[in-house]
Amino acid sequence: MSDKITLSLPVFPKGEVWLAGAGPGDIGLLTLHALNAIEQADVILYDALVNRSCLDYAGPQAILEFSGKRAGLPSSKQYEITARLIACARDRRRVLRLKGGDPFVFGRGGDEALALAQAQIPFRIIPGITAGIAGPAYAGIPVTNRMLNQSVTFISGHDANGQLPKNLDWHALARGAEVLVFYMAIRHIKEIIGLLLAAGRDPEDPVAFISNATTENQRVMTEKLLHAREISEKAVPAPAIVVVGKVINLRSSLAWLAEKRDNKLRKLKAALSQSGPFIF
Amino acid sequence: MSDKITLSLPVFPKGEVWLAGAGPGDIGLLTLHALNAIEQADVILYDALVNRSCLDYAGPQAILEFSGKRAGLPSSKQYEITARLIACARDRRRVLRLKGGDPFVFGRGGDEALALAQAQIPFRIIPGITAGIAGPAYAGIPVTNRMLNQSVTFISGHDANGQLPKNLDWHALARGAEVLVFYMAIRHIKEIIGLLLAAGRDPEDPVAFISNATTENQRVMTEKLLHAREISEKAVPAPAIVVVGKVINLRSSLAWLAEKRDNKLRKLKAALSQSGPFIF
Repeated sequence: MSDKITLSLPVFPKGEVWLAGAGPGDIGLLTLHALNAIEQADVILYDALVNRSCLDYAGPQAILEFSGKRAGLPSSKQYEITARLIACARDRRRVLRLKGGDPFVFGRGGDEALALAQAQIPFRIIPGITAGIAGPAYAGIPVTNRMLNQSVTFISGHDANGQLPKNLDWHALARGAEVLVFYMAIRHIKEIIGLLLAAGRDPEDPVAFISNATTENQRVMTEKLLHAREISEKAVPAPAIVVVGKVINLRSSLAWLAEKRDNKLRKLKAALSQSGPFIF
Repeated sequence: MSDKITLSLPVFPKGEVWLAGAGPGDIGLLTLHALNAIEQADVILYDALVNRSCLDYAGPQAILEFSGKRAGLPSSKQYEITARLIACARDRRRVLRLKGGDPFVFGRGGDEALALAQAQIPFRIIPGITAGIAGPAYAGIPVTNRMLNQSVTFISGHDANGQLPKNLDWHALARGAEVLVFYMAIRHIKEIIGLLLAAGRDPEDPVAFISNATTENQRVMTEKLLHAREISEKAVPAPAIVVVGKVINLRSSLAWLAEKRDNKLRKLKAALSQSGPFIF
């Protein structure tokens, strides 16, 4: 990969915090800006959903700090993270805050940036690929298709306290956009589906459950909305994205990743049958 | 930038088409997968919104074909593009279809993938950073913030014929999500704002117009919804993203890019005042 590219990317000044999205999991979905930031950072505070192999590109000077949230104590932990970002920046270090997905899409990046602004720490925002678009894409589901939908809504399945958000207008949500994409919704999925059906959403609408989006462990399950409540929480490993809408029907033609895996298996079987016993 | 990364990324097989998003403009928002595809492709069909400098990384064998749409003739041109993709793939070339933003977010990537599936051409989807998230981020606007919104809707401002989409439920859209992000909406923006107001959207809601998202020419204008109709089409150069919602108020604290530009100017002025005459 050419060095020319690094040359055109910004230098990470001491005492700055860069808030970057690392994408949903597949290392190939990392942006050049994120990689450039990883290579230069002195301290990297990374979330639970960040693909660890991107940290291999950190420099020898870099301190790597895991900052995944502790179950049940999200807000105190969040306070500690912002305090740490500010302290490291005041210490004149190059501080990279690396988050799964995009920092500004249900990622608390806004809260962290506000704390930095208040502390007068200079910062930069580096968007990342969000799981709610890339997960469906890897499952062969375009979140928009001009024949089927002109709008798509992204919804958080829980609020800051882990509860179903109270202020959502479910009637308007159910009828507003032809396609709905839920983040962090598995815990409340039965209630969410009930609310959508009660609000008049078509019970024949397909639903897709996408676990571990874009990683080697991505798993996809589809069901009609009417029956989707019956899918057990255990059958859908977290983290998961839930999509509702007729674009899911395109998956029967567009499931390119499954197709690639099938091709590999076919080739492997062909190789096995031609070359006799084969250890792997 | 380390060569290790390229090693872990997929080899582009002959006769395949890869549909990739090049992101909204800033070359740093290109993904490693997109760069890997550019480096290996034999033919690259690129859209009008693709940052041309990413084509510098194409190999010496690569044929670069501009495939921007001709004004007024979108559908026949679209037909020609898919026909060309299929012909090149049947010719056993490595075909890269490079689109601005994300191919599956108002990008017609789904239509092109369906045509490839029908023609039995193997393909891969490479998501890209979408302008509707990154443009606001560069303007200091998080599309979600847990204190302000739990949902965000992305809406196309025109349909396949360049008209305002007919099937949108404006009442539900206006009340469904706290934040609305419109793509390609400038031509119909007066009508859209009228529909939102008629549907009961708060006239005090802020609106942001973001032109040339993430590029050096990014320009941002904000106004209240009530007065936003008065902003002339000429004042907002295309391509533009329009955001509606209270998250825009965070921009007064989070406009990091403007801050960086101001810092550069300050440093330049300081350098000028210290070193006497300076030619640049």
